[in-house]
Amino acid sequence: MPFDDKLGMQIAFEQAKKSYEEGGIPIGGALIHEDGTVLGRGHNMRIQKNSATLHGEISTLENAGRLPGSVYKKCTMYTTLSPCNMCSGACIMYGVKRVVLGENKNFVGAEKLLESLGIEVVNMEDKQCEELMSRFIKERPEEWNEDIGEE
Amino acid sequence: MPFDDKLGMQIAFEQAKKSYEEGGIPIGGALIHEDGTVLGRGHNMRIQKNSATLHGEISTLENAGRLPGSVYKKCTMYTTLSPCNMCSGACIMYGVKRVVLGENKNFVGAEKLLESLGIEVVNMEDKQCEELMSRFIKERPEEWNEDIGEE
Repeated sequence: MPFDDKLGMQIAFEQAKKSYEEGGIPIGGALIHEDGTVLGRGHNMRIQKNSATLHGEISTLENAGRLPGSVYKKCTMYTTLSPCNMCSGACIMYGVKRVVLGENKNFVGAEKLLESLGIEVVNMEDKQCEELMSRFIKERPEEWNEDIGEE
Repeated sequence: MPFDDKLGMQIAFEQAKKSYEEGGIPIGGALIHEDGTVLGRGHNMRIQKNSATLHGEISTLENAGRLPGSVYKKCTMYTTLSPCNMCSGACIMYGVKRVVLGENKNFVGAEKLLESLGIEVVNMEDKQCEELMSRFIKERPEEWNEDIGEE
């Protein structure tokens, strides 16, 4: 039986909540092998580490550590928000099998690019992900715009 | 007068050499504003920091620090090797204006994707970049394959 996407998303969402509670941008991720092993989890670190590159998914891949290329091919990347071009590109580069996203109401990333390259994309349309992100964007629009390279 | 691409590539190549001398993967980058300011420079840190995400260009963006979105739009990313999907995606996400690459004999990244989105791509066909990268790939094929998610 494949790993339960709801459980995967819950792990990613816990990371998003953790980031929010730290005063950071509430986007979380989890890299989960098809055998159910959670290889990595992480969240956006722009504010916490003054980082321009540690988006939720990049942070997750970084925390998963150095892995043989073959491992990624059996993994799903769970992320609370539709992944931007950088994070989608990381999934493409490593050949992640599936990308499961919490929602794309607050931001639409490179979903079409992922699909065009044969990566399965699933949108959970998760209300808790949507509400937390939406709350942050209203509270701190400048940090959010900075995170996606907007003016 | 626009910033001299040869000088930009030399700065990126110095980073690649530094990485090689540290025992790391010899890919370097520099983010340079159109007014000539070097905003960041960096190199691959897979081996030095056991990092799965600090490719040369990601490292360069990280070292440049948090910047307003408007700044990237006036920048060129110099990189000694054709940028992979993750690094190209980072340039797309931030809206970098130009990507100048040292060579694409050793690896062809997402150049077409960058161009299709209106980012100017220049290949310097630089022999010193090509030779250093080629030497590393021959010396340490496992680390190189790991860096691009190959088996």
